[in-house]
Amino acid sequence: MEKMIELASVGVRGLEAYQPGKPIEELERELGIANIVKLASNECPLPTSDRVKHAIETGIKDITRYPDGSAFKLKRKLAAKEQVSESQITIGSGSSEVLELTARIFLGAGQSAVVSQHAFIVYRLIIQSLAAKAIVVPATDWGHDVKLMAQAVDDTTRVVFIANPNNPTGTWVTLADIERLLQKIPDDVVVILDEAYFDYANVGSAAVGYGSGIPLIERYPNLVVTRTFSKAYGLAALRIGYAVSSPVIADLLNRLRPPFNVTTPALDAALAVLDDLEFVSRSCQVNAAGMVQMVQGLTQLGLNFIPSVGNFIAFECPRDANEIYNALLKKGVIVRPIGVYEMPNHLRVSIGLEEENNRFLTALTEVLAATR
Amino acid sequence: MEKMIELASVGVRGLEAYQPGKPIEELERELGIANIVKLASNECPLPTSDRVKHAIETGIKDITRYPDGSAFKLKRKLAAKEQVSESQITIGSGSSEVLELTARIFLGAGQSAVVSQHAFIVYRLIIQSLAAKAIVVPATDWGHDVKLMAQAVDDTTRVVFIANPNNPTGTWVTLADIERLLQKIPDDVVVILDEAYFDYANVGSAAVGYGSGIPLIERYPNLVVTRTFSKAYGLAALRIGYAVSSPVIADLLNRLRPPFNVTTPALDAALAVLDDLEFVSRSCQVNAAGMVQMVQGLTQLGLNFIPSVGNFIAFECPRDANEIYNALLKKGVIVRPIGVYEMPNHLRVSIGLEEENNRFLTALTEVLAATR
Repeated sequence: MEKMIELASVGVRGLEAYQPGKPIEELERELGIANIVKLASNECPLPTSDRVKHAIETGIKDITRYPDGSAFKLKRKLAAKEQVSESQITIGSGSSEVLELTARIFLGAGQSAVVSQHAFIVYRLIIQSLAAKAIVVPATDWGHDVKLMAQAVDDTTRVVFIANPNNPTGTWVTLADIERLLQKIPDDVVVILDEAYFDYANVGSAAVGYGSGIPLIERYPNLVVTRTFSKAYGLAALRIGYAVSSPVIADLLNRLRPPFNVTTPALDAALAVLDDLEFVSRSCQVNAAGMVQMVQGLTQLGLNFIPSVGNFIAFECPRDANEIYNALLKKGVIVRPIGVYEMPNHLRVSIGLEEENNRFLTALTEVLAATR
Repeated sequence: MEKMIELASVGVRGLEAYQPGKPIEELERELGIANIVKLASNECPLPTSDRVKHAIETGIKDITRYPDGSAFKLKRKLAAKEQVSESQITIGSGSSEVLELTARIFLGAGQSAVVSQHAFIVYRLIIQSLAAKAIVVPATDWGHDVKLMAQAVDDTTRVVFIANPNNPTGTWVTLADIERLLQKIPDDVVVILDEAYFDYANVGSAAVGYGSGIPLIERYPNLVVTRTFSKAYGLAALRIGYAVSSPVIADLLNRLRPPFNVTTPALDAALAVLDDLEFVSRSCQVNAAGMVQMVQGLTQLGLNFIPSVGNFIAFECPRDANEIYNALLKKGVIVRPIGVYEMPNHLRVSIGLEEENNRFLTALTEVLAATR
């Protein structure tokens, strides 16, 4: 049935099938080890917020009913939080869905989107699925060079993707630089500013010049800012995020958005965690402390790493990264190889709890010592 | 910012913004009434299965972690249930997502899809969003005329949608007729057979000649069958469904599918309810009994209705359907107007619990008597 593949759209034919990771329990069975530490997906390492737990339990009685497709209460709460109108918010199945919907609206075959080298890989997959062209702009010091990105915009460009901070590099762009890009490019090019790791970058003083892009939307209606509940808010299992945009773009997003794209437990949990300021604050504090621990550990091992304002850090391996990845795996520590990001010599490790970070640093020390 | 609308893809520009229903509690506040009976969305009226409840509660501890994107255990269980290989199953955020993904793979601008008059409206929205043409085939006795549908396939046709049973008419097509359609049309046209209401039609003897299309896939690899957990399985809030297809089409679906399109509570609940045969059986029994009750009630009122094998029934209003809809609403009973289905004189009512059906029939009796 090769014929079926030929019948598929050009964009889909060029896509790689996604290779999902195995569930931890399967991996434990295969490797014959227990107590695996997973520092591979930039998840929140804290136990689930009690308020979230209670909200999900309360909602179970309504599992037989469709979710509120309008996300009535959540939009109201987010609008107040972000100081925008409810008509500017679009709820998605993770921020990845609102990213994809935005691209599907504005980007098509024969058109192009500008992305940075080393940027979150999902942008390239979305562009490919639409049979559009990715204009990949070289990174500067592993980060987005927004000046070069603005220059790369040409007549075919409909979308610019900016990850701020970027995954897997942990680099960030200042708000002033983002505004400069918006000033330079034509106002019919849509800028998608992915702020999935916003909360980590926005605490402390590490990310100089960093800030939310949301206040820029009023002056630049071609700007779409996306956020997620999967990181600092600890709701990765529930797939919920949102876009803030002009009401016109939100209306377009709502036309294409599946009417029931988010589940009831996700809506309930998001509402609950927005009231749990203590959880989010602790989430960011634990991350900041863990980042210090990781930086110290990697420094002691004499490894190069990319300074990160996210909840992860990419470090350079002194020998083959896949070999080190596999050796860590055998010691029960899962990290993320990032060869697909043109970073074949780096590994990315998520910031976990103190004891998880210790497990990783100890395992890495042993692995590096093993063949010295 | 009319400019932004002009920049949107042709398909999106032609889409109507989805008008979501209000949450019941908002409606109760507006109307100043309590205890609203919602028979508007073809949901399972039973309380949530205890096994499902337990499974969701158990999974809450992992809410901070991403779901299993490969749906490892659920695919294994579904493959055994449907007697197919795991490589033939694609899990979706409701069956609507797998329907849409299939269309996005095989259908584009300048191409066409064949649908029946009165068929589930989502097909038309999907076709429109892709800037493709809908070839709408007139219904016979409110149902799909698959002979006419096969004849309607032309050189531009890439997809045929069949809802079996169909929502909102409750009509069904025999398995023999579906096979005849598959024999007649070119094998490069993909047939999407939507069996969302399969379980209701497959019990008892009401749907003569009805059967699962899944065994046909082996002989017709251009056939994609979709199922949902939102109806008889009672998981509408969790957005989970699946497609069964040839492995080649499943591979294409998995390329385009977002890697984490289904939540952990949904995966856990689906696994649990597949083991809860008693729940599903009761769900179908309560529906069968409720359907008898509704048919008797509508007959006593002298109303015409379309015999249905789903969990809903469409009846003809003796006067303006919207007026009757609104009068029922004021009495705290929500049903569904279906003017958008070219059925402006009908209303669709979902089958509820015995007391809910009574509430509806009593309210309808009062409404019809009011202006006689």
